[in-house]
Amino acid sequence: MLIDGRPMRTIWAAPDGSVEIIDQTLLPHKVKVVALRTLDDAVRAIADMQVRGAPLIGVTAAWGLALAMRADATDSGLAQARARLAAARPTAVNLAWALERVGSVLAPLAPSEREAAAQREAVAVAEEDVAACRRIGEHGAVLIAEVAARKGKVNLLTHCNAGWLAAVDWGTALAPIYVAQERGIDLHVWVDETRPRNQGAALTAFELGQAHIRHTIIVDNAGGHLMQHGQVDLVLVGADRITRTGDAANKIGTYLKALAAADTGTPFHVAAPSSTIDWTLGDGVSEIPIEERDADEVRYCEGALPDGRLARVRVSAAGSAAANYAFDVTPARLITGLITERGACAASSAGICGLFPERRPEALQIA
Amino acid sequence: MLIDGRPMRTIWAAPDGSVEIIDQTLLPHKVKVVALRTLDDAVRAIADMQVRGAPLIGVTAAWGLALAMRADATDSGLAQARARLAAARPTAVNLAWALERVGSVLAPLAPSEREAAAQREAVAVAEEDVAACRRIGEHGAVLIAEVAARKGKVNLLTHCNAGWLAAVDWGTALAPIYVAQERGIDLHVWVDETRPRNQGAALTAFELGQAHIRHTIIVDNAGGHLMQHGQVDLVLVGADRITRTGDAANKIGTYLKALAAADTGTPFHVAAPSSTIDWTLGDGVSEIPIEERDADEVRYCEGALPDGRLARVRVSAAGSAAANYAFDVTPARLITGLITERGACAASSAGICGLFPERRPEALQIA
Repeated sequence: MLIDGRPMRTIWAAPDGSVEIIDQTLLPHKVKVVALRTLDDAVRAIADMQVRGAPLIGVTAAWGLALAMRADATDSGLAQARARLAAARPTAVNLAWALERVGSVLAPLAPSEREAAAQREAVAVAEEDVAACRRIGEHGAVLIAEVAARKGKVNLLTHCNAGWLAAVDWGTALAPIYVAQERGIDLHVWVDETRPRNQGAALTAFELGQAHIRHTIIVDNAGGHLMQHGQVDLVLVGADRITRTGDAANKIGTYLKALAAADTGTPFHVAAPSSTIDWTLGDGVSEIPIEERDADEVRYCEGALPDGRLARVRVSAAGSAAANYAFDVTPARLITGLITERGACAASSAGICGLFPERRPEALQIA
Repeated sequence: MLIDGRPMRTIWAAPDGSVEIIDQTLLPHKVKVVALRTLDDAVRAIADMQVRGAPLIGVTAAWGLALAMRADATDSGLAQARARLAAARPTAVNLAWALERVGSVLAPLAPSEREAAAQREAVAVAEEDVAACRRIGEHGAVLIAEVAARKGKVNLLTHCNAGWLAAVDWGTALAPIYVAQERGIDLHVWVDETRPRNQGAALTAFELGQAHIRHTIIVDNAGGHLMQHGQVDLVLVGADRITRTGDAANKIGTYLKALAAADTGTPFHVAAPSSTIDWTLGDGVSEIPIEERDADEVRYCEGALPDGRLARVRVSAAGSAAANYAFDVTPARLITGLITERGACAASSAGICGLFPERRPEALQIA
């Protein structure tokens, strides 16, 4: 997608064997490219959320293994790198998926072959993510076009950032919006701020602004009111982990929007590539691990001062404790449908199996 | 209640005929007392949220009429003062209620008698609010004690600030918590941050800290997750306007918490004095006016820099639009019960009539 009219991705290989990313902690205030040269760099980039979004975390982890293999391509080096990357963030399953995929390619190889193989595999993971996101966009755009055909223009609501900044390109929940824009559909997007890290106000609004898509930032509290008053035609969100039964973990607060959508009859769709599906899990609420992050993300708010310097201000009473759960789980019963690279389906084992028949044996185990 | 161990109220008469308030826009960072000397001062204090919270807005409006009568006690002065105060904030009905109450006392009087009468009535409104809030606390504490008897300790969740800072003393939703504390019940309160103005993180956490009540600040997105995981025994919120049918307007985002409470079987109670009931309205979602405030409250976040200076930082992408709906309406079907100065009741015409039989003719009109 574009930044200041120039095509960009969120992660790419540099000629010197390092990997470059956009430091997303500085957006929307600064567009700064950072080089990752070591396993440590990759782990820190994921944990500190210089890169974030389930698909991008997966791709960064794949590249992290390639960087690790430059320094130590032994079996123990590989095992350590996998363990450290896997621990960087617990909720998104794409991380574990990418590590398993690249790791299983590397394991049978001689150490001398591992760096190059990891790079090839990381490139493949990234390219497949781009293609999957584009297909998600095309499948999801059909849903948007249906509303447009009925109502003329379409009001969408999204939570957090599941745009191209959360993936390599196109994004997941925003991909259908970009494709719908290509097709000339009149769109407006309500953008949830998404405290505590404001990925909606900072990243989604930035993306949509760069793409010249009409949008309005709202606080996380406002979506229910808008849905009550018919101001939202469709809710589109991403996911960090989807169970084989269709429960979806996504940024904290997604569950509240799904409840409002169900209460008001607003369609609520979850868009994610199949790498986000955890075929081993049947009950999202009890089984998906929920990351707890530093309480200071809640106590403080980061942004730009009038002179452009970045600063954080304490918004909370001094001495008060805070808790920072990063994700919640939306039960499948509240999800109108899933949108994957293979198409849209019901948020259920049967729906998912219909699109991924080769996973049927896993998906239909004890539900 | 106490600030630094000293008993305080939110508004009081000064010896020189002015009225003093705590400037709540500076809390929790500074405790600054401000004198209101004119009608303009009172209107600005309400509109700019130096005072906020439905009961306190009502009392401030009553005092605003007294200040107005010092300058112009004619019929037209009275009419103008009523109109300007009424327009300061549209959603809380306590404002209109207090103006009607004081105004109807003043109207038949000679202009020369109006200032003193307005002061007497403002004092009466304030004292009645204190007594009503204390009684709300006693009635609500019964609900908390029931949970304590069953579970030992009680986890509550509240949204925005409906504590003593929102009233004259005691508060509405927090009053039961203060009374339960007096009775030795083991309490912990989850405090919703309440963007965009952070009244939870700033005011409720400040109040609870001053009262030595255990509490944890969370972002507005987090309450659903906590309820899903059994971490909330009881939700207690205030209200800015309650219809005769039990629908309740309260700070934006309350509806989302009510949905989560209903979905998880968590009791959800609305605490408010009867001055918050609008007997003329039957359908809250369609009939209660919802204030829209400055979009910059959403684009920016205010707080304290590390050196203690107050500042605001821009959290949103430059050039993005924002919308700022200040309240939403929770339908009665999602409310377990109302807590008023006369006791607890179902959120319905029948429930409200049971407590306020003298209002039955109004309350049971077309529902």
